[in-house]
Amino acid sequence: VRETCQTYGLSEGEFGELLARVTAAKATAYCPYSKFRVGAVLLTRGGIFVSGANVENASYPVTTCAERVAFAKAITDGHRGFRAVAVATDISPPASPCGMCRQCIREFCDLETPIIMFDGDSNFSVMRLEELLPLSFGPEALGVQSQA
Amino acid sequence: VRETCQTYGLSEGEFGELLARVTAAKATAYCPYSKFRVGAVLLTRGGIFVSGANVENASYPVTTCAERVAFAKAITDGHRGFRAVAVATDISPPASPCGMCRQCIREFCDLETPIIMFDGDSNFSVMRLEELLPLSFGPEALGVQSQA
Amino acid sequence: VRETCQTYGLSEGEFGELLARVTAAKATAYCPYSKFRVGAVLLTRGGIFVSGANVENASYPVTTCAERVAFAKAITDGHRGFRAVAVATDISPPASPCGMCRQCIREFCDLETPIIMFDGDSNFSVMRLEELLPLSFGPEALGVQSQA
Amino acid sequence: VRETCQTYGLSEGEFGELLARVTAAKATAYCPYSKFRVGAVLLTRGGIFVSGANVENASYPVTTCAERVAFAKAITDGHRGFRAVAVATDISPPASPCGMCRQCIREFCDLETPIIMFDGDSNFSVMRLEELLPLSFGPEALGVQSQA
Ligand SMILES: [Zn+2]
Ligand SMILES: [Zn+2]
Ligand SMILES: [Zn+2]
Ligand SMILES: [Zn+2]
Repeated sequence: VRETCQTYGLSEGEFGELLARVTAAKATAYCPYSKFRVGAVLLTRGGIFVSGANVENASYPVTTCAERVAFAKAITDGHRGFRAVAVATDISPPASPCGMCRQCIREFCDLETPIIMFDGDSNFSVMRLEELLPLSFGPEALGVQSQA
Repeated sequence: VRETCQTYGLSEGEFGELLARVTAAKATAYCPYSKFRVGAVLLTRGGIFVSGANVENASYPVTTCAERVAFAKAITDGHRGFRAVAVATDISPPASPCGMCRQCIREFCDLETPIIMFDGDSNFSVMRLEELLPLSFGPEALGVQSQA
Repeated sequence: VRETCQTYGLSEGEFGELLARVTAAKATAYCPYSKFRVGAVLLTRGGIFVSGANVENASYPVTTCAERVAFAKAITDGHRGFRAVAVATDISPPASPCGMCRQCIREFCDLETPIIMFDGDSNFSVMRLEELLPLSFGPEALGVQSQA
Repeated sequence: VRETCQTYGLSEGEFGELLARVTAAKATAYCPYSKFRVGAVLLTRGGIFVSGANVENASYPVTTCAERVAFAKAITDGHRGFRAVAVATDISPPASPCGMCRQCIREFCDLETPIIMFDGDSNFSVMRLEELLPLSFGPEALGVQSQA
């Protein structure tokens, strides 16, 4: 953990807070269809933590994943700029954000932003956005300035 | 307004609060692609107001509409049971929720739930969910109990 | 059937063709997650039938419903103008298109377009688009001319 | 081109066909909102080419991207197993598939599958699925066997 924190510019307290909150967030999922709980937490540049979890729907494509719930909250609460994204599921090895969520992260985060993925036992792996979504398509392609 | 409140079981104070909050919510939209701002506010059975606005993405289908943002917040905050949904845009006549959002509302609300649609000048129309999404497809079709 | 055909401007041969094709389409679904097969068929103004079925994804929101698959095919094949939409599932009473699909139909069809919903035993009900998606949001709200 | 074909197991004829068809596919896009045309073509293991283009909607999240249109066609036509995915836009450098589409490709393709991205002048770059969507989330996480 110490090394991870140094590499990605987080304090150990922040890392612990991300783990505690993402675990709690997972319990707020509404997933009667997949029964696959996902929690997500964002750490803003201002030091605020914003949580989300998956919210499914009988019409599967109407589902919103945990990461997109967290960004929806953060963005409409006025936050811009994020230092880290944490995601947690109950499986091992840790699940990564789906491609749709990587695209959502891309809209609002630097390519260097660390994405910390926890499994059900608090083991984790970390990748930067650029590593999870290389050669990405973003706002610039449509003439819109990035929010990162 | 008085008659609307009586018909749909809202107090005039609650109606005023919905209008004030949905107007404020509209200003939190992130919509550089459509430039079409939408605000949404839910009133829970417990008397809590939960706001949302549209959060767009360079990949258009990754966009989350205002109504779904509000439900994502409310559901992951533990709220169940909603007395009203308010939506506001800048056009006239008032815009209605898109079909995708009607489906989201269906997952979490009674068919009698009023959906109040405001235009840019606070004029409004109201329809119940059942009127906006008749003969709807919902959780029961997949053997899941409704959350309404 | 005869009465339905008269009301909605279809020949009995066309109706039979819709039923046969939508039943066949259902068998082409890729739905290992929901195990809920849906078929859809469109009848174009030019008399062409275009079929689709649901194509699901491990990330549930990446799923494309049967109706949207059929429209995606038809539109990219150059078809414009549709006389009927048929949908079939294995449950009874017949399932209706989800809200997201009603929105897709709205982009490309007249409000009078009949939507024929078959259950697993070829029983059916019919509603016009305007009945399934009243007071709808469409292209005009964004200054785009309808394709209907 | 020759080297690309050798690396990714395509004949030069197949490569030329992919370019010709993806350019033609781009012209079938329905994109009055973004005005950003995208074409996609798949080459199946059986040697069949399947085309798609983006089909947008007034409700932006109801949009289906070109890649997902092509897979929806191919899968419901019974195809399984793909040797290459080609994508074309009008911008330079070539645009890559959005994250949502990478997730769709993941459901149906080997991680080694080449994704060929053309700009408006037929310049291109190529990446394997594993390079565009590393450490991906897929069917196995939900106990479903991959279709690749
Ligand atoms: Zn996701
Ligand atoms: Zn919507
Ligand atoms: Zn649908
Ligand atoms: Zn895409």
